[in-house]
Amino acid sequence: MTAFRTEFEVQWGDCDAAGIVFYPNYFYWMDSTFQRLLASRGLGQRELQARFGAVTPLVDVGLAFKSPVTFGQILTIDVTLSEWQERRLRLDYRIECEGRLAAEGHEVRAWALTVGEKLKGAPVPDEFRKMLT
Amino acid sequence: MTAFRTEFEVQWGDCDAAGIVFYPNYFYWMDSTFQRLLASRGLGQRELQARFGAVTPLVDVGLAFKSPVTFGQILTIDVTLSEWQERRLRLDYRIECEGRLAAEGHEVRAWALTVGEKLKGAPVPDEFRKMLT
Amino acid sequence: MTAFRTEFEVQWGDCDAAGIVFYPNYFYWMDSTFQRLLASRGLGQRELQARFGAVTPLVDVGLAFKSPVTFGQILTIDVTLSEWQERRLRLDYRIECEGRLAAEGHEVRAWALTVGEKLKGAPVPDEFRKMLT
Amino acid sequence: MTAFRTEFEVQWGDCDAAGIVFYPNYFYWMDSTFQRLLASRGLGQRELQARFGAVTPLVDVGLAFKSPVTFGQILTIDVTLSEWQERRLRLDYRIECEGRLAAEGHEVRAWALTVGEKLKGAPVPDEFRKMLT
Repeated sequence: MTAFRTEFEVQWGDCDAAGIVFYPNYFYWMDSTFQRLLASRGLGQRELQARFGAVTPLVDVGLAFKSPVTFGQILTIDVTLSEWQERRLRLDYRIECEGRLAAEGHEVRAWALTVGEKLKGAPVPDEFRKMLT
Repeated sequence: MTAFRTEFEVQWGDCDAAGIVFYPNYFYWMDSTFQRLLASRGLGQRELQARFGAVTPLVDVGLAFKSPVTFGQILTIDVTLSEWQERRLRLDYRIECEGRLAAEGHEVRAWALTVGEKLKGAPVPDEFRKMLT
Repeated sequence: MTAFRTEFEVQWGDCDAAGIVFYPNYFYWMDSTFQRLLASRGLGQRELQARFGAVTPLVDVGLAFKSPVTFGQILTIDVTLSEWQERRLRLDYRIECEGRLAAEGHEVRAWALTVGEKLKGAPVPDEFRKMLT
Repeated sequence: MTAFRTEFEVQWGDCDAAGIVFYPNYFYWMDSTFQRLLASRGLGQRELQARFGAVTPLVDVGLAFKSPVTFGQILTIDVTLSEWQERRLRLDYRIECEGRLAAEGHEVRAWALTVGEKLKGAPVPDEFRKMLT
């Protein structure tokens, strides 16, 4: 099962007036983790576009918050590519902060071809699947 | 059942290099919708803090994406306060764009007292419940 | 002289842990104001791309902060297209909040053609200049 | 003269529909660089607040863009604390990307005491000045 770990530092500007992470930012870090996973296999968005004419838009996303995080802290994010469907892939995220669980979530992403300005779902090509496995 | 509707315009800077909304921004709009719902009842975060010493941190959030949205488009967001638990409330969101469904999601928020720099869960006070009902 | 006025509501998530606007967000509103000015003349980024194959990247930007702004407040932004150069345009911004001056700044933007993935500066076409004047 | 260097990776979500950095994000990185400079001297915003009851709001900021940057690239930011005034400090930023100059700018920050919810300018204390020199 494909797994990847990366880290992010929480910045002052990531926190809200209550002094904790403004929650949409967790999804920025989840998306960035996915991009780093792709890049670790030589598959950035640029390569996806050039080689496959494809992008990986979100179908469904969720996150459960377990403990608050504030600026100056380091997030360790583990992502697991947990499921392949014909036209989709599922990623599970575990976000730790200083040894404790901060949040757990998932992304379901589609494989979509860019046709002019439109996106059109399509089967995930074997070549992509193999590069990520 | 408490319901509230508001609108946001999608800006150029809300979109990613694929030309569609960078998905974490949907949660910015969901959070902003919740804040406007509170404000419509005279209950901004400032009043929550002053009157109750409380904030409403996220416990769980999810979103299913139905159709892509790009800059210049208007999002109409309907939020329904669908469930009260002793220490939590659930909000359901329906996000439309130009007459079609763009996304559907939810937030579960806790009632938490600010004790110094810490947050501590507590029962939702009747006064708050009544103001939002 | 081309002038345009628009408004934005400052959201909870736009503020930092000190409870005031996290300053990079002012530039999001300035950029959004420019996009709305373009759109008011039938010139969104989409039209710029389709009609001229052009974008308007930043050359220089500055902002002086006059008074703090917090969530729930409304910003009124006045932009003036104050100068045309052969390959550039200058925009001056005045940002008011509840009747007082919050910030004053400017953007200098270039006219750039998209050549593959590269940007290449070019003279501003008369057609664009006339549409904005 | 106080100098500090740090790095940031440009993420997919930092870029706009033209595929280059959405410019307000440069100020997020400049602010984050300042916070890291403070932290390198044991002076995070938390310590500023606890020890001095102070924050360092922006007075003036500017940035000149020299070459475009896209996702996956690394920014190296050098900050120099170039001037102390009685109630202010000036920071100069040089942002490089892959060996070329990407942008150059500055921040002028005030020393401000938090009095209730208000900010009140005050002379920079010697203790802070020494810790940063």
